[in-house]
Amino acid sequence: MSCRIGMDVGGTNVVTGLFDSEGRLLRRSKVRTIKLSSCELIQQLAGQCKEILAAEGVRESELEAVGIGLPGFIQSESGVVSSANLPFNDVPVATRLQQLLGVPVAVENDVKMVVYGEYLHGAGKGYSHVLGLTIGTGMASAWVSDGRLHEGAGGLAGEIGHISFPDISYMCGCGMKGCLETVASTAGIARQARDGLKAGWVGLLAERFPPEIRDELTSHDVWQAYLDGDAFAGQVFQRTANWLSRVLVPSIALLSPDVIIVGGGVAAAGDIFFDSLRSYVSASLHPLYRERLRIVPPSLGDDGGLYGSAEFALKSRKIGLRI
Amino acid sequence: MSCRIGMDVGGTNVVTGLFDSEGRLLRRSKVRTIKLSSCELIQQLAGQCKEILAAEGVRESELEAVGIGLPGFIQSESGVVSSANLPFNDVPVATRLQQLLGVPVAVENDVKMVVYGEYLHGAGKGYSHVLGLTIGTGMASAWVSDGRLHEGAGGLAGEIGHISFPDISYMCGCGMKGCLETVASTAGIARQARDGLKAGWVGLLAERFPPEIRDELTSHDVWQAYLDGDAFAGQVFQRTANWLSRVLVPSIALLSPDVIIVGGGVAAAGDIFFDSLRSYVSASLHPLYRERLRIVPPSLGDDGGLYGSAEFALKSRKIGLRI
Repeated sequence: MSCRIGMDVGGTNVVTGLFDSEGRLLRRSKVRTIKLSSCELIQQLAGQCKEILAAEGVRESELEAVGIGLPGFIQSESGVVSSANLPFNDVPVATRLQQLLGVPVAVENDVKMVVYGEYLHGAGKGYSHVLGLTIGTGMASAWVSDGRLHEGAGGLAGEIGHISFPDISYMCGCGMKGCLETVASTAGIARQARDGLKAGWVGLLAERFPPEIRDELTSHDVWQAYLDGDAFAGQVFQRTANWLSRVLVPSIALLSPDVIIVGGGVAAAGDIFFDSLRSYVSASLHPLYRERLRIVPPSLGDDGGLYGSAEFALKSRKIGLRI
Repeated sequence: MSCRIGMDVGGTNVVTGLFDSEGRLLRRSKVRTIKLSSCELIQQLAGQCKEILAAEGVRESELEAVGIGLPGFIQSESGVVSSANLPFNDVPVATRLQQLLGVPVAVENDVKMVVYGEYLHGAGKGYSHVLGLTIGTGMASAWVSDGRLHEGAGGLAGEIGHISFPDISYMCGCGMKGCLETVASTAGIARQARDGLKAGWVGLLAERFPPEIRDELTSHDVWQAYLDGDAFAGQVFQRTANWLSRVLVPSIALLSPDVIIVGGGVAAAGDIFFDSLRSYVSASLHPLYRERLRIVPPSLGDDGGLYGSAEFALKSRKIGLRI
């Protein structure tokens, strides 16, 4: 039996999925990765692959390919990675891991891998043109059309979180001022709420977070306050949906996707976010687009990136990329 | 010698181009089309094809395919056309013309054909990812990536002129309020200038267009006033570039094009428009995009649509579309 592995590498955890030749998920495992060096992390990734094969009783010779999704900028031709959240700075992750495992390894941006997985097996299954976005710790997009994951010039397609707007005043970690990601992200949700409280919001959030502990407020606290009935907390999610619609509306007119999949920690807020997003987007689009508009959450939960990277590895291997 | 024909069908003229098997333009002709019925226009298109073959001394049996670019909404699978500027309302233009000519006929939106032509032989030649926009009578876009002209779900990709913004107050011909096209188009240029004059602008435009003839003012007059030194006229083009940047910036982050080709009557204003556009776009993008940003005018003049539609016809024929 031939098999492949998909890995979702984050700043805190590595999740590994073993798939059979039909693309069925046989087994998944999860380990913590914090405070490892570049070498240690690559060793750990190789170790995870070997462990999951052993646990499932699969010989290493049956492994066809490994795919890895991780946050950061990936030079797609070479698999060289630079990431703010991982110990990789111009590290040829694909080549190193390939040497350790003896099989082709493909490395791609994690958001692209999640969206590719959703396109193949999740909320995008059966559609030709799928636009996916993640709005969580950061914000990025991926575009799959007629089976092709779009890379763009320099592999730079999808960094929609770093569009700057003149009416956003926050500094971004990327060095620019007013990036969309500074408001439309989990940190952005918390930031909007803290600034609202400073400006005099009253209600549950204000009671729960007096000035002396205000800096501890997280996006989850805003969501909890919304669930408990705080009107201002609800407005934060509505406003965030409005920010996102500024990018989504031009994207829909430009590309006419069959479906738009929005995932990540902010989208996990559910109806308050999705209903607002659909409403803002509809209001700005021609009826022809409005009628066919589908804005949905992902359907593979946390496994989208595993499915996507495992399949992407196989596809890259077949067309001779990254080997 | 096998040959193909590309046609650019507008509300006023039909331009026809005859190409040899190497894609070289052998001959072009132009006729007026106004006030023809649907049947008459289709007859005229067939007649134009036969005439240009005869004029070049090419036998009709050597004609391989005909491609047509025209303004309007085209159901790309069937070649059925609905157009506000032509006498076509759900007319199967491709099928009818095919019956008259006995060769495969492909029909597509004119902006898509211009951009496809520029991708193959013009300002987009040699690039993998080409975004093209026309900002003239109307406003639309087309996206060519890895040789594929993107259609989108329902063939609806590219109607960026009909994105509505809350701070645009004009009604659009499409029935919506605040469409981008109401300000970013030749009519939009004239509209902005007329409203500026009403609001008290002074200078050349005000002298040339006193209230009693203000309605006669065209985008060309605004451009002429700018060339003659009118500051307000220059601002109209700058503001229009700013409107366009609202769509262009998200598009660049989403897709990372190698090059962006902006054509049409407004873009013909030249430096005042392009310099402003590059400046607004740069200010809102991450340096990674900024460094590789190329926003250029078309290089095929009025022939982009001929090149594009002739090649598109051949490609559609080969892959079995529309025949």
